[in-house]
Amino acid sequence: MKNVAIVGYGNLGKACEKIACGSEDMRLVGIFSRRRGLVSPYGTPIFAQEEIFDMAKDIDVAALCLGSANDLVSFGISLAGKVNTVDSFDTHAKMRDYVKNMDELAAEGGKLSLVGIGWDPGIFSLCRALFEGVLPNGLTHTFWGKGVSQGHSEALRRIDGVLDAIQYTVPKQEAIDLATQGKGEALTERDKHLRVCYIAAKEGADLKKIEETVRTMPNYFEPYDVEIHFVDVETLRREHGGMPHGGQVLRSGYANGKGCKLRLELELESNPDFTAGVLLSYAAACARLNEGGMCGAKSILDIPASALYQKGYALRFV
Amino acid sequence: MKNVAIVGYGNLGKACEKIACGSEDMRLVGIFSRRRGLVSPYGTPIFAQEEIFDMAKDIDVAALCLGSANDLVSFGISLAGKVNTVDSFDTHAKMRDYVKNMDELAAEGGKLSLVGIGWDPGIFSLCRALFEGVLPNGLTHTFWGKGVSQGHSEALRRIDGVLDAIQYTVPKQEAIDLATQGKGEALTERDKHLRVCYIAAKEGADLKKIEETVRTMPNYFEPYDVEIHFVDVETLRREHGGMPHGGQVLRSGYANGKGCKLRLELELESNPDFTAGVLLSYAAACARLNEGGMCGAKSILDIPASALYQKGYALRFV
Repeated sequence: MKNVAIVGYGNLGKACEKIACGSEDMRLVGIFSRRRGLVSPYGTPIFAQEEIFDMAKDIDVAALCLGSANDLVSFGISLAGKVNTVDSFDTHAKMRDYVKNMDELAAEGGKLSLVGIGWDPGIFSLCRALFEGVLPNGLTHTFWGKGVSQGHSEALRRIDGVLDAIQYTVPKQEAIDLATQGKGEALTERDKHLRVCYIAAKEGADLKKIEETVRTMPNYFEPYDVEIHFVDVETLRREHGGMPHGGQVLRSGYANGKGCKLRLELELESNPDFTAGVLLSYAAACARLNEGGMCGAKSILDIPASALYQKGYALRFV
Repeated sequence: MKNVAIVGYGNLGKACEKIACGSEDMRLVGIFSRRRGLVSPYGTPIFAQEEIFDMAKDIDVAALCLGSANDLVSFGISLAGKVNTVDSFDTHAKMRDYVKNMDELAAEGGKLSLVGIGWDPGIFSLCRALFEGVLPNGLTHTFWGKGVSQGHSEALRRIDGVLDAIQYTVPKQEAIDLATQGKGEALTERDKHLRVCYIAAKEGADLKKIEETVRTMPNYFEPYDVEIHFVDVETLRREHGGMPHGGQVLRSGYANGKGCKLRLELELESNPDFTAGVLLSYAAACARLNEGGMCGAKSILDIPASALYQKGYALRFV
């Protein structure tokens, strides 16, 4: 039985709470949040974020469910070395620096911090490394969707005149087919994914201007084919209220000149609920591995699958 | 640069030789075989099997490519603790005992033995454990094929009146669909796979009797739907001379009541060539891990994906 803390109480934190409350292997110590006046539907005690430092000795592992990369970089790092942590830090480009910072602090404090635990980064990272490791001669492609991108939805919501919006990332089947055949070398971002936007505009907003702002937004939309649908806010919330996601990691290559295709495919009705499950499975592993002496910051690539199980139990999968 | 030995010179040993000869990270010390008078097309030195004991100090890792589980259980075990080994031991039912025996000897000798390295057991085992670890509430199914089963082909060849034969294991799409929808609970062996046999009979053989022997053969064919095609031996060798294989591990379940599907899919033009690639990737990892102090027998579940890479290099996949 592991004592688990949840830091942050957004979609991911709430999904973690529900899983932890239903688990026989975990005791949920509490939720630590910056926001005041929160009440848990499960009766979980809710503490101010900073209180975790005083309670650290009673916590086997903290699941960091902080909303943004910025919160993780600041508050997450302040926890490293004081308590075992798992997080789903997902800014691939900043991963190296983040790991380096977490590693020094965690190692100093004799604690273990697992970073980038989720499905991408996370299970997809693991499969990219595994696939290339066993099939060095080949090409890897990652496709995302069909699913809701929180980052792109947020970017739409920040546009002047937008009341609410949802963006689906949709992989293009022709690109998947080319990558499967090992002919994906020249695929561009535009070839691989379509961005489908459902936007509820404010009354009197200039729809043409919103559309232009979307299509020309650098990084987020400009490099892609974009489909824009204006809908009323009730339709948006009724028909696009879920958070489905998924995707695939595909490697196509050769061993001794003979074709080999490896594919990992994920299809999720709810992105935060699956991600929470991954995070808590690795949280339990994190606590066990630290008891066994593992310290510092590690990525999912450093953690053997057997760590997800009690010792010896894993062998039944072989 | 690791010094690698290959033990056994069948399909798998030959495929390993070809990969090792093309690798910049390996030096192939030699092939160790029971058979006499062999010549390597690559000029690799070929030694008698027992000579490996005298040469052990010059070998960083031995890839055990012995034909049968029996050879591994006898000769493989005699090597444990004397040299680092990787093998593709594939008798799931005997895995526990095999690992236990190898573990004691390898640990005693301060060496590392990786067992069950290939795709099943191997990558499929890893994914079964990973998928259940992150999605405890669900069902896992493994489907094999379309591909040649060596064991079933051999079983056909031993039948009186059979000159040569090939057996393809073919997964049934309806079963895959049910498993994908999470409705695979009641699937039997007969529901999941079809066994398709191509048989070249000897002149004057009783085809009806051969067919009956196949259909009633316990374990191998009796529990399955079987398709039998009699062909002449030239057709057999021309059209069925390859060794394609593949399959999928599929987990369908729920996180907080929301549906999640995970699938690993493999499609191989040549089973031995891909398996050899997996074996040698883990051979290099085995040598590195033993240098780092890991001893005993381990399965693929115990080895983190990062071990397939030089230290630090793995992080680029995250």
